[in-house]
Amino acid sequence: MKFKVRFLGLEAGGKSVIILNKEDAEDLGVSSLGRVRVGFGDREVTAIVNTATKLIEEGTVIIYEEVRRALQLEKEGVHVNIEPAPFPTSVYFIRHKLRGRKLTYEEILEIVKDVVEGNLSEIEIAAFVTALHSFGLDLDEATSLSLAMVETGNTLKLDRSPIVDKHSIGGVPGDKTTLLVVPIVASCGMTIPKSSSRAITSAAGTADRAEVLMPVGLSIDEMREVVERTNGCVVWGGSLYLAPADDIFVKVEHPLSIDPLLLPSIMSKKKAVGAELLVIDIPCGRGTKVKTIGEADLLAKDFIELGRRLGIRVQCAVTYGEQPVGYAIGPALEAREALSVLMGDRQPLDLIDKATDIAGILLGMGGIENSKELAVETLRTGKAEEKMREIIEAQGGDPEIKPDDIEVGDERLTVRSEVDGYVLWIDNTNLVEVARLAGAPKDKGAGILLHKKVGDSIKRGDPLLTIYAERSSKLERALELFKEGGVIGLGGRVEMLIHEVRERPIAKKAFSLER
Amino acid sequence: MKFKVRFLGLEAGGKSVIILNKEDAEDLGVSSLGRVRVGFGDREVTAIVNTATKLIEEGTVIIYEEVRRALQLEKEGVHVNIEPAPFPTSVYFIRHKLRGRKLTYEEILEIVKDVVEGNLSEIEIAAFVTALHSFGLDLDEATSLSLAMVETGNTLKLDRSPIVDKHSIGGVPGDKTTLLVVPIVASCGMTIPKSSSRAITSAAGTADRAEVLMPVGLSIDEMREVVERTNGCVVWGGSLYLAPADDIFVKVEHPLSIDPLLLPSIMSKKKAVGAELLVIDIPCGRGTKVKTIGEADLLAKDFIELGRRLGIRVQCAVTYGEQPVGYAIGPALEAREALSVLMGDRQPLDLIDKATDIAGILLGMGGIENSKELAVETLRTGKAEEKMREIIEAQGGDPEIKPDDIEVGDERLTVRSEVDGYVLWIDNTNLVEVARLAGAPKDKGAGILLHKKVGDSIKRGDPLLTIYAERSSKLERALELFKEGGVIGLGGRVEMLIHEVRERPIAKKAFSLER
Repeated sequence: MKFKVRFLGLEAGGKSVIILNKEDAEDLGVSSLGRVRVGFGDREVTAIVNTATKLIEEGTVIIYEEVRRALQLEKEGVHVNIEPAPFPTSVYFIRHKLRGRKLTYEEILEIVKDVVEGNLSEIEIAAFVTALHSFGLDLDEATSLSLAMVETGNTLKLDRSPIVDKHSIGGVPGDKTTLLVVPIVASCGMTIPKSSSRAITSAAGTADRAEVLMPVGLSIDEMREVVERTNGCVVWGGSLYLAPADDIFVKVEHPLSIDPLLLPSIMSKKKAVGAELLVIDIPCGRGTKVKTIGEADLLAKDFIELGRRLGIRVQCAVTYGEQPVGYAIGPALEAREALSVLMGDRQPLDLIDKATDIAGILLGMGGIENSKELAVETLRTGKAEEKMREIIEAQGGDPEIKPDDIEVGDERLTVRSEVDGYVLWIDNTNLVEVARLAGAPKDKGAGILLHKKVGDSIKRGDPLLTIYAERSSKLERALELFKEGGVIGLGGRVEMLIHEVRERPIAKKAFSLER
Repeated sequence: MKFKVRFLGLEAGGKSVIILNKEDAEDLGVSSLGRVRVGFGDREVTAIVNTATKLIEEGTVIIYEEVRRALQLEKEGVHVNIEPAPFPTSVYFIRHKLRGRKLTYEEILEIVKDVVEGNLSEIEIAAFVTALHSFGLDLDEATSLSLAMVETGNTLKLDRSPIVDKHSIGGVPGDKTTLLVVPIVASCGMTIPKSSSRAITSAAGTADRAEVLMPVGLSIDEMREVVERTNGCVVWGGSLYLAPADDIFVKVEHPLSIDPLLLPSIMSKKKAVGAELLVIDIPCGRGTKVKTIGEADLLAKDFIELGRRLGIRVQCAVTYGEQPVGYAIGPALEAREALSVLMGDRQPLDLIDKATDIAGILLGMGGIENSKELAVETLRTGKAEEKMREIIEAQGGDPEIKPDDIEVGDERLTVRSEVDGYVLWIDNTNLVEVARLAGAPKDKGAGILLHKKVGDSIKRGDPLLTIYAERSSKLERALELFKEGGVIGLGGRVEMLIHEVRERPIAKKAFSLER
């Protein structure tokens, strides 16, 4: 049936919804919450029906913005075709998994296709993800999922080799390593088309950090141009549609704090950009997502084997993650720190070490000898800085940007030590919580600058850290949380009592692994 | 914040949705798909926010009908209070179950409360149900779920004893047993406050059958009045809110074809009406939900033990279910058959046998001797008919109703045998599919009347069954499916080849167990 289109600027947080007159919906044979295919020209989208008795005359459909964008509708009054959506076969395959059965590639592809096309309800998607979590998925299924997610999204095709990539599973605050690795590797002649995510539960994602230096919301074509010109890029994955199914799965996984799709999710995005060599950084230790080296090694094995099946050579770097990398936490503070390191102005050893280790592994995998030394040299001589400025320019930023040009929050408060002794520990989770209350990552200038790190000796009155915020109310809230304690441990010696357990505490929300 | 209310007759299939101006939503700090508490007087409901840029001026909220009903809003222009919804603690408990942990009563109560109050998203509810399915729930958890569902719904309080009940897990077409059991038991002096469901995947639920004879959409107060007057009733559970959480769980379970909540779902509704003695009918055999007697016994054991924990004495009746009960399938045809049996006009032996067996067990559990004979006698002497007419009158129906007053479909087609021999089998699933294509249960007069049952001898030209429909187009579709075969098996002897397997067939949709 044909319907005349009206817009009212309605949005449903990413869901495709239309409103039909109740009579029309009955004629179509669909009820409220029923699903229809809406077609315009050669575009089609599946939408959920709401009905109205007053708002809308018969023969008219109110189109939510999500549907409008998918169909690229420009003006009201045009006609769209609406038919009841067929029952998606993939639901049968989801039911198979619910009975604990292993799924084939064809079944998984059908499910992933229907996820991307909006043919499955939230209930069905949530059940699929939960079943993957509780029954587990083996490497065959992980391979199928990775390939199906590549199949149903954009891919980057570059006429060069080797194409390399790096990924961190996240969990350590202040980890701006990527902003150093990309220019080092690219300036050594390898191609690194890096797409990154924004923060979900952290104080800054790599995309948030990079955005302080340059635009990151590039299309896949723009990304290709930048990489062809400069050998590298640092762009936001969200606008590339590299594995769009994953963005939908994440919306289910996040509220449930489960991530059965972690491996396929990461690897599909690497496969989609054509990566041949890949280093996965697995930060490890107390206060990170992976607590022990044993766990890290097991995870590494899975990444390597999944990579092998996808035709990607993977090495993992298990790294020390019990305190922030470098001194800065928060998008602008971190971008400023990274730029200073590239310019040789600052020397946070852990950050430089980690970045050159990872760049070194990538270069080594590409056949370069003494690769760690080359990475250090590339950074020291300013070649990496030069390359970064090329990339900034190619992505549309200001290639002359200086650390001082980067604005950070005006509301600041420095916390000083009340004791003599040492920094015994820094709690990543609580530190991030303080930075987030201060406004990060939304307020780019908000965050924390550490003045001391674990093992540093302190004197009473020494500055420990400065909290930055863009609004005084947020600074106050951040400070309140800081004062509750549990962020940074000072003392003359390690104390034996870790903490007391009284009543059953409600577990704090865990990190989500970054993708 | 206060908002002025507008209605537009919008419906979202049972979901609570409101539309806010985008600026207002931002001021409230909620995005599209965010959750808010909407308050009016002392009523409160959690709703999902959609936003609009054009439709709606600032300070105004468009209220969907679902929210309007929950808040009992009568006219536009009044003000409601809207605040961001707090994060529901029960999500932590759902995450526990996702890690395979056993839940306590307190945790389960919190989850069920949040389900009923609309505080959980579909994603969270679907994950909970899927986790219950895949990790399983033990009898402690089943007890907690049953009690929590009773706790969060209406209960029926009757000042008499014993209160008895019966339930069939369904799966056999034409099972109008309840319409006989209720009047038999009630006329023997026991109290049987029967609430029943409508068909989901079958051709008729008990509520659909009963509705042909009398109104069934009673409130809990009306139900109490009927039971106090007559000792019994047959009402629809949907308007009683006996365990409203279950109605929400079912909406998740049904599309996934899983039912981890089967036992708590059934038992909570029995507990809510105060049942002390309960018979559960488990139809068993090929073509039913429970295929073997061994499976039936295991299920029975769980029902009995869960009953014990809830203070309900349970016995199960494992019954033969390989063909329909009686001859009629479809709401009106079945109501007519039940009424004829009560009046002594017809004698379908299997139906009479099953009804008096179950009534007999209930009466026996209540301490009556020779209870099966008493049940048969009550039916034979017309006492059961008399009681049924009392109940019909008390529920607002016509107590003088005759079988011929019941309208059945005008479009009819009788299928005749093309061979001599015997009826070898009847396939319940395919038979129901034909009845549903003919219009049942929505078209009350649609259905199937069998003329022969399994074991009956047939001659070429004998009528086998008549399909009834209210529209000729539906009759044709039903007949087409019938002609594809697989509904009724005729022959001189049993053939050894059951069927051939060629390509991988897609499994037909299974029955859902009835609640």
